[in-house]
Amino acid sequence: MITGKNYIGNQLSAIGTKTYTTFNPQTNTENTTVFTEANSDEINQAAELATAAFQTYSKKTGKEKAAFLRAIAEEIEALGDKLVEVYTLESGLPEGRAKGERSRTVGQLRAFAAHVEESSWVEATIDTAQPERKPMPKGDLRKMYIPLGPIVVFGASNFPLAYSTAGGDTAAALGAGCPVIVKSHPMHAGTGELVASAVIKAAKKTGMPNGVFSNLNSSGIEVGQELVKHPKVKGVGFTGSIRGGRALFDLAGQRPEPIPVFAEMGSINPVVFLPEALKEKATDWAKKYASSITLGSGQFCTNPGLLIGVKGNGLNQFAQTLAEEIVKIEPTCMLHPNIVGAYNSNKSKAIAQDGIKILADFSGDIKSNYGRQIVSKVDGKIFLENPTLHHEVFGPFSLIVECENETQLEEVLNKLEGQLTGTIVATDTELVSNAGIVSAMQNRVGRIIFNGVPTGVEVCPSMQHGGPYPASTDSRFTAVGVDSIKRWIRPFSFQSWPNDLLPNELKNENPLGILRNVNGIKTTDKI
Amino acid sequence: MITGKNYIGNQLSAIGTKTYTTFNPQTNTENTTVFTEANSDEINQAAELATAAFQTYSKKTGKEKAAFLRAIAEEIEALGDKLVEVYTLESGLPEGRAKGERSRTVGQLRAFAAHVEESSWVEATIDTAQPERKPMPKGDLRKMYIPLGPIVVFGASNFPLAYSTAGGDTAAALGAGCPVIVKSHPMHAGTGELVASAVIKAAKKTGMPNGVFSNLNSSGIEVGQELVKHPKVKGVGFTGSIRGGRALFDLAGQRPEPIPVFAEMGSINPVVFLPEALKEKATDWAKKYASSITLGSGQFCTNPGLLIGVKGNGLNQFAQTLAEEIVKIEPTCMLHPNIVGAYNSNKSKAIAQDGIKILADFSGDIKSNYGRQIVSKVDGKIFLENPTLHHEVFGPFSLIVECENETQLEEVLNKLEGQLTGTIVATDTELVSNAGIVSAMQNRVGRIIFNGVPTGVEVCPSMQHGGPYPASTDSRFTAVGVDSIKRWIRPFSFQSWPNDLLPNELKNENPLGILRNVNGIKTTDKI
Repeated sequence: MITGKNYIGNQLSAIGTKTYTTFNPQTNTENTTVFTEANSDEINQAAELATAAFQTYSKKTGKEKAAFLRAIAEEIEALGDKLVEVYTLESGLPEGRAKGERSRTVGQLRAFAAHVEESSWVEATIDTAQPERKPMPKGDLRKMYIPLGPIVVFGASNFPLAYSTAGGDTAAALGAGCPVIVKSHPMHAGTGELVASAVIKAAKKTGMPNGVFSNLNSSGIEVGQELVKHPKVKGVGFTGSIRGGRALFDLAGQRPEPIPVFAEMGSINPVVFLPEALKEKATDWAKKYASSITLGSGQFCTNPGLLIGVKGNGLNQFAQTLAEEIVKIEPTCMLHPNIVGAYNSNKSKAIAQDGIKILADFSGDIKSNYGRQIVSKVDGKIFLENPTLHHEVFGPFSLIVECENETQLEEVLNKLEGQLTGTIVATDTELVSNAGIVSAMQNRVGRIIFNGVPTGVEVCPSMQHGGPYPASTDSRFTAVGVDSIKRWIRPFSFQSWPNDLLPNELKNENPLGILRNVNGIKTTDKI
Repeated sequence: MITGKNYIGNQLSAIGTKTYTTFNPQTNTENTTVFTEANSDEINQAAELATAAFQTYSKKTGKEKAAFLRAIAEEIEALGDKLVEVYTLESGLPEGRAKGERSRTVGQLRAFAAHVEESSWVEATIDTAQPERKPMPKGDLRKMYIPLGPIVVFGASNFPLAYSTAGGDTAAALGAGCPVIVKSHPMHAGTGELVASAVIKAAKKTGMPNGVFSNLNSSGIEVGQELVKHPKVKGVGFTGSIRGGRALFDLAGQRPEPIPVFAEMGSINPVVFLPEALKEKATDWAKKYASSITLGSGQFCTNPGLLIGVKGNGLNQFAQTLAEEIVKIEPTCMLHPNIVGAYNSNKSKAIAQDGIKILADFSGDIKSNYGRQIVSKVDGKIFLENPTLHHEVFGPFSLIVECENETQLEEVLNKLEGQLTGTIVATDTELVSNAGIVSAMQNRVGRIIFNGVPTGVEVCPSMQHGGPYPASTDSRFTAVGVDSIKRWIRPFSFQSWPNDLLPNELKNENPLGILRNVNGIKTTDKI
């Protein structure tokens, strides 16, 4: 049952006065459950509980944290059809997507469970004592990663499960040994509460301290701001708009004690099409991109919003087929009337710019809150001069940039802001002969793709999801995959510490059998 | 010969109008060389050159970068006695310290050379394709660390060699593949220019691009501010005061594209003395600490500024002996009249607080610019209520905090800001029975020491030099040791990239023979 209350640690609580409901974009009606926004007392209580919980939770073994993460996955699965139902009611997304995202979410939790259970992620580094060294003896020094402290996770509108309550950020922080306070996303507060109830059940079952997890409802920006400013909070994970992410980043930087904010924000995911590759396969690529642009109504952060080519028959053929193909695709429901509204307004602004030619604009009947896909085109020169065209239009939108030649194309890449991904569609020969273009793209992105589409983020250790600003606030970390744990940890050295009192990861005996760096050698041996 | 000019890449340049000289604190006179501060044109030129150099330098192999770093070490050694002479003239530090610091500096350069030559630091992570996977095929994905871009390094006043021109920050950035622009420290501009000339020679000898290194003179804060705001700069390393570091951190955070600032700032390095440990060895510890507090005239960032114990005979004995011993030590020259001035003023402010009792104050004759050591004492209760006493007094100063009991001692630790180090002097039994105190200390520091002194930072992989704010702006990184390279890199994924065009680190053949994570297994095997 969904209560509409906050979880302040294990306790359901609703002492605030501000209430709100979620919205069903498919039926264009409000859902019935009334949610109570967390007030300052509850925010403070959650932060205090998290700080107290950190004292014990930060010392849990990898095995214990793994049991907790696996129990969360099981409890989420145990929510069964109810979760799928609420997810679809609150997001307008289809059941298949709900189930797929649930699989991804529990998969992520289990991947982190395996990662922290194995324990090599602490990067244990040991330099043993050299008491006889001249001119000065050398003490014994042992370093490993330890958790940062309580982390605030902001739920993402476009991933009600995989990047929200118990999504990637939460799994990574809990895996690291950090308590988590979730700022629930207002669009899917019911989904959030259900998942939170699963986390709380799992925490109780596996003996985790009260306060290791809290879930706070919020309808506006105040709860998030208060959390980011709270002195007990030590880090923030956010997925959303550039404006929202930057505001939190600025707020965190202005604290007496600044804290890191990992905001995964906007990206237009530029795709370069080189001429030879389009000569034979323009139609194939156009079909693939029609589908990638409209996938999930364009509401993926890896949506290809910019298609860059050199003028000529190949690009003409590609553009024409893309225009034909994309209008054949049935529009789908977007997440919320506000998202549709922002899409329509950003789209209108973009296509109203000088020199924009509309190639395809879905003109059939659509239901309320469905997103109408559109493809337009602009000359490279005009694009270079108009920064408005460089910004993301969140939704099924893409802009073709027609360059005079490869030099102008490289210039276009050099003018772009940071991006999550960049794609090069080319023959092998073209890839070799266009090193400047490849290098320009590499400087702008976190992941570079050859002959593919940017949508479809594989959750695996080699995935980099994050890029130069404003794709994310810190390009030095990924938001997807087990390495995302690196956001929530800090290195810590023990000097001349008694072996018995060291954490297991650093003991002479290497009781966990992990890979360690001992006196410069990587080994699983004991000392 | 020292010219007083800037190195803008390989070019000596002095087109600015602002000039200054360095100061010899031993003789209390100005040195003769006139230095010309870099102007905006030169700053801009250095940044543009660094950006151009990044295109080729970022692609140099580990072997090539190692050759460059080793050549820098050789060229620094080739400066011979001249470097030692200028170092002592500009710092007031003795010849032995100059030579020791030079050894450390070339040692650091060679350690980074070995680290990047070996190349496993890129953490190559590979997940091969699964074209048959259901429901969706999986593409080939390969991730490694790549350099961030041009880095600005601020020279440190207290380490004219090891944390300045070609010190730890520079070695780490160059090792990562990032060009470096040094903001030379005004107190040792001559030392800086000599070292810069060695770096430039090494760059030419090993075929590195013009702009891979620049050295900019500056007498105030403007050059540094301009550099941090420059859009082509992608990261900043700083060692110095909290005020200076925080100002740069704020400036970098306000940029349209924020960049990371790693500022290693203040620390009072708390030391806890537990009663049993003092029962027998109070005198020994007092002697050790008299020496640690006055080492280098207290001008080390790991200087023990706070000595915390529980009232009783042991602490009395320790305090008395420390007072007796510390005044036996001959004062030494501090770095600059400004440093002496700040020391005297901060010291006066601290000892003027209510409840402070002075135990020892060196009263003998001293030369100008020498630092007078002082030890004072305060009750735990008064310390808890007066934040002025929690701040660093940079110089040979230490404050004993006498607590009522272990509970108050833990409270004192919980009230402290973040620190580089924390030390526990205790018997093995006391260490076990005071888990709360150990845990409180761990939450505040980056390195915890058992039965030792915090001074003496070993340069080795297991060293963590950095701690919670304000010890440093980002506790998630170290400023000492090869892992400090992690500040200047970002992860990057190649998706479905042709094997021939991948960097060597990611090729199937593993031509570098490095340790990689391939499909979840750590291995040096080829694929």
